Amino acid sequence: MKPVGFVRSSLKRPEDAPKQGEEGAPDAWVEVAADVALGLEGIAAGQEIVLITWLHQAARDVLKVHPRGDATVPLAGVFATRSPARPNPLGLHRVRVLAVAANELKVGPLEAVDGTPVVDIKPALSSD
Amino acid sequence: MKPVGFVRSSLKRPEDAPKQGEEGAPDAWVEVAADVALGLEGIAAGQEIVLITWLHQAARDVLKVHPRGDATVPLAGVFATRSPARPNPLGLHRVRVLAVAANELKVGPLEAVDGTPVVDIKPALSSD
Repeated sequence: MKPVGFVRSSLKRPEDAPKQGEEGAPDAWVEVAADVALGLEGIAAGQEIVLITWLHQAARDVLKVHPRGDATVPLAGVFATRSPARPNPLGLHRVRVLAVAANELKVGPLEAVDGTPVVDIKPALSSD
Repeated sequence: MKPVGFVRSSLKRPEDAPKQGEEGAPDAWVEVAADVALGLEGIAAGQEIVLITWLHQAARDVLKVHPRGDATVPLAGVFATRSPARPNPLGLHRVRVLAVAANELKVGPLEAVDGTPVVDIKPALSSD
């Protein structure tokens, strides 16, 4: 797997990021790698897309977490939570496209921090 | 990235698979690897989850496709489609959990074929 792009955001640190985009995350840019930018053709401002990211700062050797980091909530398996900690730290983000400019998409709201690799981009379906 | 499990399905060939689960796909099992099965704790029958798969038979060097394989529809960038062909052939499947048995989840409907690696499992959010 290789990045198809990177997140450029005012959010710099995971500890400052909301847990989900709709919990107050900023808009951000996705800079798409030049060698795959042709794959963006047909994406237009206004539509909803799904970004799959690689949460590169997440722990990969953790199988149980307290949901939402709340130590008062019993431990749950990572696959039963949206914790970034998981064997393959993939992030899933449904966002709106706000602007399309050459190799870049402005999207939001997005809770992934600046520098996060993007590994796939898909149109959102109503069934997602 | 490493598989956290594999799809076990009566669907054996990509050419027999519907393009989306809700287009007539069968129910299937996800066999989760023993070393990460603890991560399933808290997943229960009846809930909706998102599977992220690695569509191992897909082309990775394609950036434009005819949406839904229909040659009468103009070419579009792969990131504007749900084609399995894309630089990182990740599949995204929202499915219902039908049964939980030790290291296995029965889910459906699922259009991924038998043997497809599963790379992540997440609870579905209303915002997905």
